[in-house]
Amino acid sequence: MTTAPERYRRASDYLAACMIYLRDNVLLREPLRPEHLKPRLLGHWGTCPGITFVYTGLNGVVARTGRRTLLVTGPGHGAPAVHANLWLEGTHAAYDPALSRDATGMAELVRRFSWPGGFPSHLSPEVPGVIHEGGELGYALATAVGAALDDPTLLVACIIGDGEAETGPTAGSWHANKFLDPATDGTVLPILHLNGYKISSPTVYGSMSDAELTSYFEGAGWSPRIVDVARHADPDEALAQTLDNALADTTARPMLIVRSPKGWGLPSHDAHGTALAGTFHAHQVPLDGVHSDPGQLALLESWLRSYRPEELFDTHGRPMLDLLTGLPPEHLRLGRVPQANGGALRRDLPLPSIDKHCVEVGSAGTTTASANSVLAGWLSDLLGATQQRRDFRIVCPDELESNKLGGVLDVTDRAFTWPVTGYAEHLAPDGRVIEVLSEHLCQGFLQGYLLTGRHGLFPCYEAFACIVDSMVNQYAKFLKMAGEVSWRIPVAGLNYLLTSEGWRQEHNGYSHQGPGFINNLLTKKASVARIYLPPDANTLLHTMRHCLRTTDKINLVVTSKQEYPQWLDMDAAEAHCRAGAGVWEWAGNHATPEVVLASAGTVPTMEILAAAWLLRRRAPALRVRVVNIVDLLALAPPDRHPHGMAIDAFTRCFGTEIPVVAAFHGYPSAMHEVLHGRRAPDRFHVHGYQEEGTTTTPFDLLVSNRMSRYDLAADAVRRAWRTRGSSIADALVAERDALLGKARTDGVDPPEISEWRWTA
Amino acid sequence: MTTAPERYRRASDYLAACMIYLRDNVLLREPLRPEHLKPRLLGHWGTCPGITFVYTGLNGVVARTGRRTLLVTGPGHGAPAVHANLWLEGTHAAYDPALSRDATGMAELVRRFSWPGGFPSHLSPEVPGVIHEGGELGYALATAVGAALDDPTLLVACIIGDGEAETGPTAGSWHANKFLDPATDGTVLPILHLNGYKISSPTVYGSMSDAELTSYFEGAGWSPRIVDVARHADPDEALAQTLDNALADTTARPMLIVRSPKGWGLPSHDAHGTALAGTFHAHQVPLDGVHSDPGQLALLESWLRSYRPEELFDTHGRPMLDLLTGLPPEHLRLGRVPQANGGALRRDLPLPSIDKHCVEVGSAGTTTASANSVLAGWLSDLLGATQQRRDFRIVCPDELESNKLGGVLDVTDRAFTWPVTGYAEHLAPDGRVIEVLSEHLCQGFLQGYLLTGRHGLFPCYEAFACIVDSMVNQYAKFLKMAGEVSWRIPVAGLNYLLTSEGWRQEHNGYSHQGPGFINNLLTKKASVARIYLPPDANTLLHTMRHCLRTTDKINLVVTSKQEYPQWLDMDAAEAHCRAGAGVWEWAGNHATPEVVLASAGTVPTMEILAAAWLLRRRAPALRVRVVNIVDLLALAPPDRHPHGMAIDAFTRCFGTEIPVVAAFHGYPSAMHEVLHGRRAPDRFHVHGYQEEGTTTTPFDLLVSNRMSRYDLAADAVRRAWRTRGSSIADALVAERDALLGKARTDGVDPPEISEWRWTA
Repeated sequence: MTTAPERYRRASDYLAACMIYLRDNVLLREPLRPEHLKPRLLGHWGTCPGITFVYTGLNGVVARTGRRTLLVTGPGHGAPAVHANLWLEGTHAAYDPALSRDATGMAELVRRFSWPGGFPSHLSPEVPGVIHEGGELGYALATAVGAALDDPTLLVACIIGDGEAETGPTAGSWHANKFLDPATDGTVLPILHLNGYKISSPTVYGSMSDAELTSYFEGAGWSPRIVDVARHADPDEALAQTLDNALADTTARPMLIVRSPKGWGLPSHDAHGTALAGTFHAHQVPLDGVHSDPGQLALLESWLRSYRPEELFDTHGRPMLDLLTGLPPEHLRLGRVPQANGGALRRDLPLPSIDKHCVEVGSAGTTTASANSVLAGWLSDLLGATQQRRDFRIVCPDELESNKLGGVLDVTDRAFTWPVTGYAEHLAPDGRVIEVLSEHLCQGFLQGYLLTGRHGLFPCYEAFACIVDSMVNQYAKFLKMAGEVSWRIPVAGLNYLLTSEGWRQEHNGYSHQGPGFINNLLTKKASVARIYLPPDANTLLHTMRHCLRTTDKINLVVTSKQEYPQWLDMDAAEAHCRAGAGVWEWAGNHATPEVVLASAGTVPTMEILAAAWLLRRRAPALRVRVVNIVDLLALAPPDRHPHGMAIDAFTRCFGTEIPVVAAFHGYPSAMHEVLHGRRAPDRFHVHGYQEEGTTTTPFDLLVSNRMSRYDLAADAVRRAWRTRGSSIADALVAERDALLGKARTDGVDPPEISEWRWTA
Repeated sequence: MTTAPERYRRASDYLAACMIYLRDNVLLREPLRPEHLKPRLLGHWGTCPGITFVYTGLNGVVARTGRRTLLVTGPGHGAPAVHANLWLEGTHAAYDPALSRDATGMAELVRRFSWPGGFPSHLSPEVPGVIHEGGELGYALATAVGAALDDPTLLVACIIGDGEAETGPTAGSWHANKFLDPATDGTVLPILHLNGYKISSPTVYGSMSDAELTSYFEGAGWSPRIVDVARHADPDEALAQTLDNALADTTARPMLIVRSPKGWGLPSHDAHGTALAGTFHAHQVPLDGVHSDPGQLALLESWLRSYRPEELFDTHGRPMLDLLTGLPPEHLRLGRVPQANGGALRRDLPLPSIDKHCVEVGSAGTTTASANSVLAGWLSDLLGATQQRRDFRIVCPDELESNKLGGVLDVTDRAFTWPVTGYAEHLAPDGRVIEVLSEHLCQGFLQGYLLTGRHGLFPCYEAFACIVDSMVNQYAKFLKMAGEVSWRIPVAGLNYLLTSEGWRQEHNGYSHQGPGFINNLLTKKASVARIYLPPDANTLLHTMRHCLRTTDKINLVVTSKQEYPQWLDMDAAEAHCRAGAGVWEWAGNHATPEVVLASAGTVPTMEILAAAWLLRRRAPALRVRVVNIVDLLALAPPDRHPHGMAIDAFTRCFGTEIPVVAAFHGYPSAMHEVLHGRRAPDRFHVHGYQEEGTTTTPFDLLVSNRMSRYDLAADAVRRAWRTRGSSIADALVAERDALLGKARTDGVDPPEISEWRWTA
């Protein structure tokens, strides 16, 4: 049987197979010889025919309905299928004339795939229409949901392979429908593509019966429809009808399950009897040994010729016109969807003034505030200002209230569309906050939202941000690559607000203490990663306003929800944030110090200032300078990071020879890492989190990690005054231990611990 | 109504509430006054009554059936409930006489909870019966499944909160039943506990209807039974019957869904009209302001008195005898299950000899082997030797074959119990390899398996190990804490074999390149983390044998599956592994070198040796020493890590002043971090992964990251010979670029790139 979709798929499958194997003789105008083969065969055939089957079906939907459609392809290793379709539909030629729809362009496309300097073997930002790499599996569906948020006319189709379906993040994503509002959000159409096998074994979902699948997905709130190509004489027609029915059914949440044989179209066995089509042996590059094994080469040729390229492409290598009649109008083709180059849709946020949220500070440290509560006020303004535009969202694992950001719920609600019969507050289908107890979902939603041109914020318990370490790794890679693609327009920064931080997790205990997200971000490209530790409310306001203006960045902001002393007024905060780090002269006592006390982070800053205060009383002759760091990467050498302070500015802060006693929010190793390449980094003695923690008092937690004011002061005086410092340091330590003993007896820190004030 | 279970629960709930609020007057023998309250109220009440409801039901099951039962409690923040039960059943007193079952012990238990030096607010290794902390949610079910593997008489009950249920890892874990063999594994009984709310909003699963829940879990292959306490006059009886029915139904996979009001037992509203019982306001510590608000304090007192403690405890504070009649026999009580202190059950593995798998090396670099294939041979022997014991498992995200470890499938199969109708290889219900495309599940299974006294190995694609960063964080915390508990016996090491490593992911491209797992492990306690980079097959054999002998460790082994040159014979490999790092004299040319070439990792070692070889030809007068590092932490100062080489051994390798050009497998920052604290670390010039990658040739990937032999040789000669080195270095770089150009044109690395041999 030859139908239009079948002919189209034949062309696409042929091209995909050619991409994996050939460097020459792409139209098979001569007998296939070893020299026509790529020397290294890199690619994955198994999933390609299924992707093209779906792509073809979606082309039909778009052609019939005119609906703007974004395709998120979870099995990104099926890149050859997507490339083939992009070439056939002319998208490739539109982005790059070298990929013209003729023999020259076809040869270029085929050669370029998995070739040095060419297209990677997986989908990547180089590929038009792509917002998701899919090399690390699990995040396609969450990304698709994020793309659909606040874009009510958009259809987001999402192919999920049965390998990917086994991942936790995908399994959790099936409940994302409970956060999608039919009125204000687009439609997400998940397409679970079952070909039965992973790399070398059967898949979980592939082994589930139709009844099990239906029951499972109906329970999750979808209306699954199954298309099993083996059961239809005309699978394209079956898919088309099923798609139309699914999308016409506006009362339900449509979903497709497509069963197709792995490697569909391959010969059943290779020349040595290994089963191919419909088995996991079809996963990557079937027919090993084609370079040297004439039997395998002959089989490859006969397989490729089975697509009858001469019926599909004219003498100039152009696709026969009839192949293209099923395509949507040019501007609606899947590869051209504007949302896939979201930077072009992004509008700067109408950022409200921060002035009215400014905390009056007066003498440093004499007023207290919760930086997060203050920030919540400004975020509320921002949510108000974007009420009509609906292009700013907050995602959070159920921690807004706990993080003292609940104020934003006076302006918007939590999105939730499932019936809640019991007690609830601030819940509505069109809420612009999503609280789901899954950092993976939060991250996936936000990635999809940002990459389609919007803005957002991800507040998170500090320790649990590491749950998305790996997603951040991949997103950082996406941003780095996207930055190298000429037509990609920068997207809004991905902003983390890490709060409920480890130093005040003395109540939740050891499991909630973990600043390692900083270490992970430090492994990223300098062009992508930013790490800020604003020490108080006003610096947090400035920092967050800055982050929401950035593009193509991952901004990590670590802050505190606690009522803490405030240090800088609005002007000083602005100057400090601009500089990244600077001397707090009011806290030191001399322009030519013997020791620098430096800090980064809310609690460390409070401790370092208290240490300076202690030293004024216990070692008044000690010449001390106090430095605060708000932009961690300001410490990096300027040739290693664009935020690195110039050498003279660095010297003004830290001198060149004197010891620096630093209190750092995270693992000391992170600060040492940033300082690497600065002159004499060994004089930096960094106190930080040492993996010592439990449920105890805040002071005990600090002492356990040797970061209390007493530890810092003692270290400073010892390092500055090697001999006479000892007895002062010993006295400080003794005082620390006495206070700690009292804290352990009373179950609460003695009040004098927080009595000091900066009134000097 | 007062039934035995209801009275028992009343006692347990009372104690749990006391733990959260009281430091004194625990039996309420006098009116409650502010000084009886803990100064800081730290704990989570909301989930406690539900946990005790389930615990009580399980007590009944064990009492009736005599079945050994392990309880895994996902909502670890419900620790007060578990403590109350452990005290009532006498487990606490058995582990610690200070927690005797009388007024003194009760007062001590109540005071100790969330108190400095006492019990953490969450479940932790300090608590008998616990193998799962539950502070970071998501892993309870996978852990429970791991605990049940290969222990056919064990029942593992697993409470999963509706908050936790939203996480991806939990959602993915519901399919773990497909890997559980009824014949050789224990029974896992998941108990989904729905109280409807997270910290401050409704939960996804709580909002699903009974029909949706049933459909969803039946689809996933469970036989769910729902117990909604609101629907039963005697919920304990309903639970008991449902549990008995579920466990009697041996044809199916039993599962319970328990609906109970959040904070069950609380007053409906607080003194200011805030709704409490059955709402999210019951989550943590309800009744704020009890210290200073007499109305709230009075309400707390009346709430506590509503449990009628005088009916539950005798004048000595002992539980009334009738309360305890429903408990299982002492040795079967939930807190005493031996599997929860798995170290006591652990037997050393019968490790087979590695000699017969030894690769004959001859002259270094002249033979090649795939280290993984060699290892697979030895692992096959080990699987054979443990065939009867069944206490060694391999978990892997579908990558055994791809990682050239498929040889083990000649000895065992992949576990899979769902019907597979199509083509499959090496699949059986009792297989001892689990391949599931979820690193989270692999990690959770293995944690449960190790903590119950068994052994295992987790081979993983290097880049995707970061998916479990956060799980490793928590597991490292568990091990650290467990090490501080006197009665915990050490468990077998958790062994990662990271392979398909980034330097040979030139075919899968950028997304598959990421050595950051090393950086994450470096943040762990020195007592816990180990990082090995064996450069060839024989060193891999020695390393893996060592790892499988360790206890309470996380061992990271990074290796390669590729056919690569082999360097050390068996004796040399053993000595090298024992030393951690050492000079390879045959590769250098002088005892008093001008530069040290150092490497860690398979590909870096090959490149550094090639660089040394290049330098012999291009700069024969240059005095070079070659050092190899197999144990990364040998580089650490001995006062910072127990594996740190003594200063004299370090000096014998690296000298004290001369430059060291190092080729490191991971991010350079990781090696710098380890070197921190060594003398003059700035003379180490570390080449490593720079986040530059795509689909290309192996050589291109090395050059992009400046880690090719040419880059290393050029760097070395430049640093050793500041002036005369330049022209040699320039020539090397020119040669590199010419080769690279050819590689890019041909699509394959020029053959001469791998022509060199160590025949000197």
